[in-house]
Amino acid sequence: MHQNNAEAATSVLPATDSRPDRDLPVDPDLLRDLVTANHILYDQGVVDAFGHVSVRHDKDPGRFLLARNMAPALVTEEDIVEFDLDGAPLNAAGRGVYMERFIHGQIYRARPDVIAVVHSHSPSVVPFSVVKETPMRAVCHMAGFIGTGTPNFDIREVAGDGTDLLITNNDLGKALAKTLGEKVLVLMRGHGSTVVADTLKKAVYRAVYTEVNARTQAAASRLGEITFLSEAESETTSRNIETQVFRAWDFWKQKATAACAALSNQFGAGQEL
Amino acid sequence: MHQNNAEAATSVLPATDSRPDRDLPVDPDLLRDLVTANHILYDQGVVDAFGHVSVRHDKDPGRFLLARNMAPALVTEEDIVEFDLDGAPLNAAGRGVYMERFIHGQIYRARPDVIAVVHSHSPSVVPFSVVKETPMRAVCHMAGFIGTGTPNFDIREVAGDGTDLLITNNDLGKALAKTLGEKVLVLMRGHGSTVVADTLKKAVYRAVYTEVNARTQAAASRLGEITFLSEAESETTSRNIETQVFRAWDFWKQKATAACAALSNQFGAGQEL
Amino acid sequence: MHQNNAEAATSVLPATDSRPDRDLPVDPDLLRDLVTANHILYDQGVVDAFGHVSVRHDKDPGRFLLARNMAPALVTEEDIVEFDLDGAPLNAAGRGVYMERFIHGQIYRARPDVIAVVHSHSPSVVPFSVVKETPMRAVCHMAGFIGTGTPNFDIREVAGDGTDLLITNNDLGKALAKTLGEKVLVLMRGHGSTVVADTLKKAVYRAVYTEVNARTQAAASRLGEITFLSEAESETTSRNIETQVFRAWDFWKQKATAACAALSNQFGAGQEL
Amino acid sequence: MHQNNAEAATSVLPATDSRPDRDLPVDPDLLRDLVTANHILYDQGVVDAFGHVSVRHDKDPGRFLLARNMAPALVTEEDIVEFDLDGAPLNAAGRGVYMERFIHGQIYRARPDVIAVVHSHSPSVVPFSVVKETPMRAVCHMAGFIGTGTPNFDIREVAGDGTDLLITNNDLGKALAKTLGEKVLVLMRGHGSTVVADTLKKAVYRAVYTEVNARTQAAASRLGEITFLSEAESETTSRNIETQVFRAWDFWKQKATAACAALSNQFGAGQEL
Repeated sequence: MHQNNAEAATSVLPATDSRPDRDLPVDPDLLRDLVTANHILYDQGVVDAFGHVSVRHDKDPGRFLLARNMAPALVTEEDIVEFDLDGAPLNAAGRGVYMERFIHGQIYRARPDVIAVVHSHSPSVVPFSVVKETPMRAVCHMAGFIGTGTPNFDIREVAGDGTDLLITNNDLGKALAKTLGEKVLVLMRGHGSTVVADTLKKAVYRAVYTEVNARTQAAASRLGEITFLSEAESETTSRNIETQVFRAWDFWKQKATAACAALSNQFGAGQEL
Repeated sequence: MHQNNAEAATSVLPATDSRPDRDLPVDPDLLRDLVTANHILYDQGVVDAFGHVSVRHDKDPGRFLLARNMAPALVTEEDIVEFDLDGAPLNAAGRGVYMERFIHGQIYRARPDVIAVVHSHSPSVVPFSVVKETPMRAVCHMAGFIGTGTPNFDIREVAGDGTDLLITNNDLGKALAKTLGEKVLVLMRGHGSTVVADTLKKAVYRAVYTEVNARTQAAASRLGEITFLSEAESETTSRNIETQVFRAWDFWKQKATAACAALSNQFGAGQEL
Repeated sequence: MHQNNAEAATSVLPATDSRPDRDLPVDPDLLRDLVTANHILYDQGVVDAFGHVSVRHDKDPGRFLLARNMAPALVTEEDIVEFDLDGAPLNAAGRGVYMERFIHGQIYRARPDVIAVVHSHSPSVVPFSVVKETPMRAVCHMAGFIGTGTPNFDIREVAGDGTDLLITNNDLGKALAKTLGEKVLVLMRGHGSTVVADTLKKAVYRAVYTEVNARTQAAASRLGEITFLSEAESETTSRNIETQVFRAWDFWKQKATAACAALSNQFGAGQEL
Repeated sequence: MHQNNAEAATSVLPATDSRPDRDLPVDPDLLRDLVTANHILYDQGVVDAFGHVSVRHDKDPGRFLLARNMAPALVTEEDIVEFDLDGAPLNAAGRGVYMERFIHGQIYRARPDVIAVVHSHSPSVVPFSVVKETPMRAVCHMAGFIGTGTPNFDIREVAGDGTDLLITNNDLGKALAKTLGEKVLVLMRGHGSTVVADTLKKAVYRAVYTEVNARTQAAASRLGEITFLSEAESETTSRNIETQVFRAWDFWKQKATAACAALSNQFGAGQEL
């Protein structure tokens, strides 16, 4: 009853799992961390009812883990599904999956160094995605990973006018991965952004600080001309400050776990499609 | 004791119900969803002490359901009143009703396709209502329903200078419905906005994302020239993304129910007029 | 140990009560409402650790009621002190009192129609107080009481350069009351604002909506030229919409009581000076 | 496993305590206040996972107290470490310490009048740090301590391009202290700010109101030309209003203790490095 469009329905309706056997068990700690990552991204205001975070399988680089189609704040270990890099679910067992899982699969394929991916509509980043004359740049030391410019993916240039702006197939996923290139952050015009890292905790950290940097840059731009981080400062801050990611993770985890437990105590888990 | 103005009092004081018998029972699920809609709109920051949401009666298109005169966060099933399309209460039983129920009735009359209506003063939308040179447009894929422009109802042009800006009778309701036309959103100068949909859940979704879009457009306008959604993108995003309304509703319901239960545990229901 | 300035200390140190006998008992409901008003103003973000609200004594127009020197969120009935219109405490019994009680006394003296006074540093109003070229005006129907302009009290014009910007004596209180004149709202340069009404509930409502209007006007001013409420619209909205103050009060009371109870359960009442 | 950079690691890895014996016991009230200060700064939005507050030892001006390397909201008395003015830990006992403890040590050395130091990235202050043409000034009476201008430390001018912007050694600490000079607040380009005071409670108050002033000045600058506090007003407000610091402290303590207790009940103390 929720689908009023056949095309969109195809990508959210339960798909037949391409490889129903789950031979390589995921590290249980990684699974728990992925649940925590969902909760932190909600609690820190990066995702709300929409947005998603994935991690590459620790034993099979050709697979990744992502929640079924639901709000991140409500995700539990039972909601995590395995996918191959084409976005085909391996153990969905009839559950609905995210329409935009192709973002994750195609970035993992194009970038062997990437271990985790966050896609969000975080509120201060979307404005930058629709103003091409003002690129997002690192303004503060916590966001050195952004560097001196951010690619902006405009789906209209790739797929023409009249799309739904979503990355709903592998071709669009490949095009987005191409725009990302070797960077860690890509804006998506009128939509949001996607950020990557070589660890799950770092990807969460970067998603949070992408939002902080956007808010800071927007505020600074109203005060006058900005002294941005230089290329060299971006590199050094990123390298040194990201040694401290654990401090943020540990604290955010504590906050988020409390916040999401309070939500889940009310009703039990989210509702199936 | 709260009324110090006879004219205003007329429309809030208990009215004699025009048809005291309630022959067609509403679907109990719809009634529960209307209570949830009130709570979600509060919890998402669309309404506070003011604002209201209605749904058309599922068995009689000539009636609609709306809470009695109270804050949305406190509404329970017992607070829902039936109205005819002229805004006459059918079972108020002496309870005060909203001064602006005519917004709902006249839109249901003019637009047979409309099943639900949300009227609010959501904070980022009011600024657009008072700046005529800057129309609200869809800037992000979640708000494609806004399209490439939004009508703005200035009561001064219809009823002259010196009104209270409220839609307190059927003539003003008709004028507002006329400005809305076939659109889904109408701004109201110095007052707020009204948004409609063909389901209750979608109307709630649109009210929330009208506020998100306003915030995003305002922020983007300070960064430079905006690439808005095209007409074709607005149509496609609206059609495809609104298949995912259930995901937002399920999550928002869980959040809002917890938040409003905490409020109601303090005192019991809101106070009668 | 907290006083490092003799002059300031004079006005916060316990004063000898000028009339120690409390012959005219206050209406207990009014006393409870004054406590609630303190809590609402905190919960709605109008006051934080600073700011205060008073009400005129219901049996003696030459007295008013105001909390002792403490944060509004923590005020209980036991913390309310009676004052005469010169700001002399009648039953402080050695407790510290607000340095700026003269705001209240001198407005009650100059304006027999005023029953309640709120003084705050609410965050969106202070910016208007320091930018004289941009007067605050009513932009939305809920804030019609603001009208088409707001007087701005600059203490430097009255008391010269080098003051502490506070209204710490009766002469400054009189000067402020003179700038307020017959209006309901006066800005105070670099400091905040003071708003009055003929009922306590209405004064609280106006303090909240002064903040809302400031936020809305600031946001609108960044979008383009604003259509403000006309003089006639300001009058009609104020007269009609303020019949609905009870709806906001009842809801805000419920929210604020829950929030402040959670605070007080931790430690008991605030600490004495 | 968290260190992927040898240089940065040096300053966070457990250091050998330079004087393992703790001969001069700190006043237990001061220790408790330092824990409270950590919690208040978190609850008031000045620090999040990062930022820190220290106090000079009450019996040995050549030592100061600062938490080990962790999020302020989670700090307990057991987490407080003593340092000498070179930033060498005296009783870390193998625990990780903040990379930027040199901010504190070198300011205590340069400024015998300073008893407490807060370093933060509070969100409205960072934009001022990157826009040199718009200095932060006191706009409201609560922030008179800021005065008529604020020094801005640009590490690039001291240590050249390509640093990580952090104050990770005594030379950088000395350079920062030199830029601070006899002021109470110094901005740090692309990084944050540091504020000092002659009591711990006042330093916390100033850190909170530095953020409030930044938010107010930014908002006012969009409305037109600002009337700032004069030099004389800055001095008088600072002197008189800071007699009321206890009122803020008592209230903020109550709020923060509740908020942080709720966090700590979930997991116990933060995780070791």
